[in-house]
Amino acid sequence: MKQDYTLADIAAFLDAELRGDPDVRISGISSLADAQQGDLAFLANPKYKSQLPSTKAGAVILAESEAEGFLGNCLIMDNPYLGYAKISAWFNPALVPAAVVHPSAVVHPSAIVANNVAIGPNVVIAEGAIIGDRSEIGANSSIGSRSVVGEGCVIAANVAIYHDVVLGSRVRLHSGVVIGADGFGFAPDGEGGWQKIYQLGGVRIGDDVEIGANSTVDRGALEDTVIGNSVIIDNHVQIAHNCVIGDGTAMAAFSGLAGSVKLGRNCILAGSATVSGHLSICDNVTLTAHAFVTKSIEEPGSYSSNTTPLMASLQWRKAAVRIGQLDSMAQRLKKLEERKD
Amino acid sequence: MKQDYTLADIAAFLDAELRGDPDVRISGISSLADAQQGDLAFLANPKYKSQLPSTKAGAVILAESEAEGFLGNCLIMDNPYLGYAKISAWFNPALVPAAVVHPSAVVHPSAIVANNVAIGPNVVIAEGAIIGDRSEIGANSSIGSRSVVGEGCVIAANVAIYHDVVLGSRVRLHSGVVIGADGFGFAPDGEGGWQKIYQLGGVRIGDDVEIGANSTVDRGALEDTVIGNSVIIDNHVQIAHNCVIGDGTAMAAFSGLAGSVKLGRNCILAGSATVSGHLSICDNVTLTAHAFVTKSIEEPGSYSSNTTPLMASLQWRKAAVRIGQLDSMAQRLKKLEERKD
Amino acid sequence: MKQDYTLADIAAFLDAELRGDPDVRISGISSLADAQQGDLAFLANPKYKSQLPSTKAGAVILAESEAEGFLGNCLIMDNPYLGYAKISAWFNPALVPAAVVHPSAVVHPSAIVANNVAIGPNVVIAEGAIIGDRSEIGANSSIGSRSVVGEGCVIAANVAIYHDVVLGSRVRLHSGVVIGADGFGFAPDGEGGWQKIYQLGGVRIGDDVEIGANSTVDRGALEDTVIGNSVIIDNHVQIAHNCVIGDGTAMAAFSGLAGSVKLGRNCILAGSATVSGHLSICDNVTLTAHAFVTKSIEEPGSYSSNTTPLMASLQWRKAAVRIGQLDSMAQRLKKLEERKD
Repeated sequence: MKQDYTLADIAAFLDAELRGDPDVRISGISSLADAQQGDLAFLANPKYKSQLPSTKAGAVILAESEAEGFLGNCLIMDNPYLGYAKISAWFNPALVPAAVVHPSAVVHPSAIVANNVAIGPNVVIAEGAIIGDRSEIGANSSIGSRSVVGEGCVIAANVAIYHDVVLGSRVRLHSGVVIGADGFGFAPDGEGGWQKIYQLGGVRIGDDVEIGANSTVDRGALEDTVIGNSVIIDNHVQIAHNCVIGDGTAMAAFSGLAGSVKLGRNCILAGSATVSGHLSICDNVTLTAHAFVTKSIEEPGSYSSNTTPLMASLQWRKAAVRIGQLDSMAQRLKKLEERKD
Repeated sequence: MKQDYTLADIAAFLDAELRGDPDVRISGISSLADAQQGDLAFLANPKYKSQLPSTKAGAVILAESEAEGFLGNCLIMDNPYLGYAKISAWFNPALVPAAVVHPSAVVHPSAIVANNVAIGPNVVIAEGAIIGDRSEIGANSSIGSRSVVGEGCVIAANVAIYHDVVLGSRVRLHSGVVIGADGFGFAPDGEGGWQKIYQLGGVRIGDDVEIGANSTVDRGALEDTVIGNSVIIDNHVQIAHNCVIGDGTAMAAFSGLAGSVKLGRNCILAGSATVSGHLSICDNVTLTAHAFVTKSIEEPGSYSSNTTPLMASLQWRKAAVRIGQLDSMAQRLKKLEERKD
Repeated sequence: MKQDYTLADIAAFLDAELRGDPDVRISGISSLADAQQGDLAFLANPKYKSQLPSTKAGAVILAESEAEGFLGNCLIMDNPYLGYAKISAWFNPALVPAAVVHPSAVVHPSAIVANNVAIGPNVVIAEGAIIGDRSEIGANSSIGSRSVVGEGCVIAANVAIYHDVVLGSRVRLHSGVVIGADGFGFAPDGEGGWQKIYQLGGVRIGDDVEIGANSTVDRGALEDTVIGNSVIIDNHVQIAHNCVIGDGTAMAAFSGLAGSVKLGRNCILAGSATVSGHLSICDNVTLTAHAFVTKSIEEPGSYSSNTTPLMASLQWRKAAVRIGQLDSMAQRLKKLEERKD
């Protein structure tokens, strides 16, 4: 049975102005278009304003400026999208696991597991690891030796954390995440093969970090790989050894950093954006989708490359061939201009 | 010891015309060039026709038009490649696991496991989950609470399925697949951090879907993420929250959809093809390798971008620099043309 | 407590000339800039030469040509970087697991486990599998039926190896690696769906191969997928079915090979470099980051595509639009040139 709440409770939590019936009961969140009677909807993007008059939502979060003429129950907030985000936690259908160590888990006697920790079935916790208060470790995950999981973390099923990894508080790792695998370090051995460089550093991850499914953060070669606070990382992201990522930065799916990149605070890497090794990106840089950074960026702003326009394949094939002729075209153009004078 | 079959049995299964010895025994499948006496080969691509006279295959699947003059045993089919595909199942070396629940598996008492189900070692099945008839769940995989695995599914080892995920029948998930992780949803909190948006939707996957190793399908923010029937997905593919994928669509390795993309039926995304968020792609669209879609596509056809021709690096470096000068080149060209008049 | 060694021991192992105090004790490795008294540093890149005089390192590995005037303890080697790589193993903080089969592991009675093998908690080893001497299998990993792990291999936690996979000696697989999942093989079934082609081949991997976190190597359709000796593979790499990779080749993160690619020896694929199906790349080819290969390469050398220069997004948008006009620009340019004559 769905949990429900009064609109008054929600208004109090969100510190929002309530207009309408404080006792209406809310049992879910939905878009304006799909909402049913027990749902809370929100108007965050003006392009959906036309859906407001006909919504069946039990209540709507919206800005003061949009509320005029709306007759339904509503919560007035400066930032309705943030209001929706905050209240979404109340309707999360994920079950909270019981705060017990499942009997099938293998916890090394030297590991320290705090109170109120939920250790799922078949979890493996190695020697000297520390698991903080109120954290959850999902089924079949493993925590390496001497690694630390802070307080209130949520480690999903099938996560692999190597040795000497430190997670702050409220870190959330999704399934398939790998933290602390060896960085890609090899020296040519002079005989056509490769001499492995053992990766002696660890990984340090700050508070309030979320890392999406199947993303990887490699351990450092000598120093640690470091991820700041409030960093959010999507699925299939690669963080190579020795990277340092500043607070509040966001990285979307398939984005990646080669080794030793320093990425500033509050940067945004859109999908498939990548950065070459040993570069520095300053704070407040946005890289658009598929941008590929080959030199350091010292000025905040939005940067792009590689996102050429989509065309019918026949047209593209003709254009693409011309790319190989660009240098010659530029020279021929210059010659024509000179002849004109 | 290899299982073998008579050519007559194979012909009957494939509904093919048999020419030659119906009693020849077939114990494997091979290419025309590599086939040995007990092998069945096939001629699907005319470029291999020259290998036909010298093949050592015990029998060959081929089209009527290619059969003239061939003296060996053969099976005549309109579509030899489809014939090869269908018969390949008979020679699959993967062992069929015994239909038992391994004693090391952790199955919640409220979960419902049908008959003839093979639950491998260390599998974890959470409360309220349902596993359909004749399905297999490989070692160390986990099925979240209230999730449903249909009939005849094959879930490989080390797969993670979150809560409230529904798989149809005959779905095949390879190792490392993650279904139902949280979509990448966050609202800026106004203080340089991010407010997580809990992902309240689930994932629904149709019948006859196959998803390759380490691919991810995120759960919806409000509604479900939906994958139709007969969708085939390769390795390292990303399906973000709220995407809807039509029946019969194929996505090759490293392809991906950002959030809320509607992808039509019978589309083909070649390797590394990606689609930006909130776009619609109509039925019967092909995206060539590395295509990046930034606006909706309403006409069936083949579309491309980003796949510029490979060159020697020295030549490429010159051409690439010119790309940054393209706008100025176009304007200079226009000026020259105007002066001519 | 950290293990330490005398400089004399290290010099002997590296076959390096020791200058200075042979009894100085070394307990770690660091960069010249960060080194403390007990650290060994190295000077491999001339750009760090200025850090040499002020380093606090207990000793430095450097070339004869750089040693003049350096007053500290040092080890003289022709290739200081290779020296650093070789000695790094001595300071690896990863614990060596005890050579026992953990009681929670599920080892099929028909599997053969050699001596001195460390099988971690919840590992699953299927029928007929063989694990060679001195190998380690990490927690929650699974080894499929009839697969072979050679001697001295290190399989991390949460690795999935399917059936009929053969690993040579000293192979290192990181967490999330999947070896032997089905290749992406389907035939259109003529009714809008797909007929699965069962993948009858296996995977063979040579000696001294390392594969990074979450990378995938698919099994062959008919023949095996083959990876040679001393191949190094980074995270998130895709090797499709039937590929053959020559000895000593390196593939960086997000690089990938479509099906049936033959990749030569000593090739280097930088990050995100990809190769279309059925192509051959000869020995000693370098593909720069994001290169996309659409025809076979028969000459050694460096090849590029797709790595257009990074620009401010506004400038890029103008340039990118012009790419669609390139064919027309080229034709207009030609017309202008002809009018001149």
